[in-house]
Amino acid sequence: MKVVVLAGGFGGARFARALAETDAELTVIGNVGDDEEILGLHISPDLDSILYSLAGIGDEERGWGRADETWNALETVKELGGEAWFQLGDRDLGLHLLRTQALRTGEALSSITACFSGALGIEATVLPATDDELRTHVETPAGDFTFQEWYVGRRHEDEVTGVRYEGEAQVAPGVLEALEVADLIAIAPSNPYLSIGPILAVDGIRKAIESRRAPSVAVSPLIGGRTLKGPAAQMLQRFAGGTSPTHVASAYEGLIDRLVIDEADADEGEHIVTRTLMNDEAARRTLAGAVLEAAAVPR
Amino acid sequence: MKVVVLAGGFGGARFARALAETDAELTVIGNVGDDEEILGLHISPDLDSILYSLAGIGDEERGWGRADETWNALETVKELGGEAWFQLGDRDLGLHLLRTQALRTGEALSSITACFSGALGIEATVLPATDDELRTHVETPAGDFTFQEWYVGRRHEDEVTGVRYEGEAQVAPGVLEALEVADLIAIAPSNPYLSIGPILAVDGIRKAIESRRAPSVAVSPLIGGRTLKGPAAQMLQRFAGGTSPTHVASAYEGLIDRLVIDEADADEGEHIVTRTLMNDEAARRTLAGAVLEAAAVPR
Repeated sequence: MKVVVLAGGFGGARFARALAETDAELTVIGNVGDDEEILGLHISPDLDSILYSLAGIGDEERGWGRADETWNALETVKELGGEAWFQLGDRDLGLHLLRTQALRTGEALSSITACFSGALGIEATVLPATDDELRTHVETPAGDFTFQEWYVGRRHEDEVTGVRYEGEAQVAPGVLEALEVADLIAIAPSNPYLSIGPILAVDGIRKAIESRRAPSVAVSPLIGGRTLKGPAAQMLQRFAGGTSPTHVASAYEGLIDRLVIDEADADEGEHIVTRTLMNDEAARRTLAGAVLEAAAVPR
Repeated sequence: MKVVVLAGGFGGARFARALAETDAELTVIGNVGDDEEILGLHISPDLDSILYSLAGIGDEERGWGRADETWNALETVKELGGEAWFQLGDRDLGLHLLRTQALRTGEALSSITACFSGALGIEATVLPATDDELRTHVETPAGDFTFQEWYVGRRHEDEVTGVRYEGEAQVAPGVLEALEVADLIAIAPSNPYLSIGPILAVDGIRKAIESRRAPSVAVSPLIGGRTLKGPAAQMLQRFAGGTSPTHVASAYEGLIDRLVIDEADADEGEHIVTRTLMNDEAARRTLAGAVLEAAAVPR
């Protein structure tokens, strides 16, 4: 079964891994709206979380970056008075160095990602939504910030009053083709506005999903109306009017046939109910199984 | 006493430290002919060896790089199939990241070096010979290489048949001024062709030393006709015709008033004889003392 997943960072990376552990032929379309230039390096946090998670080298506890990480380069940056608000681990840095160098020589992000994916022994296809620059900006009472400035730099403490995706982004090679031949489209339990929104903002992706042949499901990022991490609940409250499954589904209007929700959120709606917390392999298997069954729901 | 030192990497860094431990008011002019672009980063190995040595954070045993170093970023580079022939430690990387970023924004190498020097609590003034690109190329029977390609990449195994300094390099701010007011000019026990030659190739520096007011001395890089590290003996044999103190002095003709040599090399010549091995603080003090006495030799 060919499955295409739309994924952000934390929940997206875990969800991609859950599906990679099944027999599905997996394509992961990763968000690049969070990408940032840090210390002259191009950082793609969501793509990297997906790569690390699929390769089994991510830090499970922290939820981002690599396992067995050290932080010595950043120690020097601090020692020398440099910009050190963004956590860059030493193992992580090696990848950023190579990617930045390849981008400078004109290689496309999608081709670099494919190369890293191969080197890390990942079987799934990992694609950035776009090879172009697309940046998520959040509007807050304290001003406008890029995603990382707000999320990391300001610890996502300012309330988000609006979200903009900046940049004229063309869809990356392979993305529309994967959606076209998919047996199932699955939206990861990521923030609809900050992680999935920037993917849908890429020219052609929203339309391809709206006119899909295959069934499409989204996994709600909420458990008991709350999130493990990040401001999705607060943003759904503000932008969708609430945190019920119906509100979550409304954020994906026209894009999904079913919503997968946690048992804690079960209501009278026609949803797929399962445990959505992915805290171990058994839990990932449960969620992946429930999601794959959705391939049989009517379009 | 104002002392200006011309210094390459290994011997230069140790010698700079030896003089920094005296009362001398020290200016170190560092070689940048070995600089290289590695993984998109600007690396200045000699300047960094000098900074690390003066700050007391260098790896004494290895003779380059930082103490307590880790190599995780490079591990990732290897894992992803990237260029990993040049050893870059994690702590070291933090400095390269900041310098590269500052150079890209148009800051001069000399100003960046001053900034790092201050952050590391170094009292001496450390100056690159030039802010411009000047590259040492070695000619060998196997072809022409940049210094690092030959020294690190090919383990300096090919015999050097010629040395070229490429680039139109203007002298960095402060260098000629320091030479002008110096009470003593001292050339470190570095390779005359590979470490000191590129400094003298910078427009104005050779002339400033030739027309000096202050006495000038060089410390021979040889002990018993051999070097601790690197190909200086072999190159003196080829380019100066031998490895005696007279041969070493001839490499600095017109540029020095005395040569400081090791006891093991003592001959009938009018040299300053001392122990030149700098393997501990007492040894550094002995050598620095002998060098500073040279301020009294007649011009």
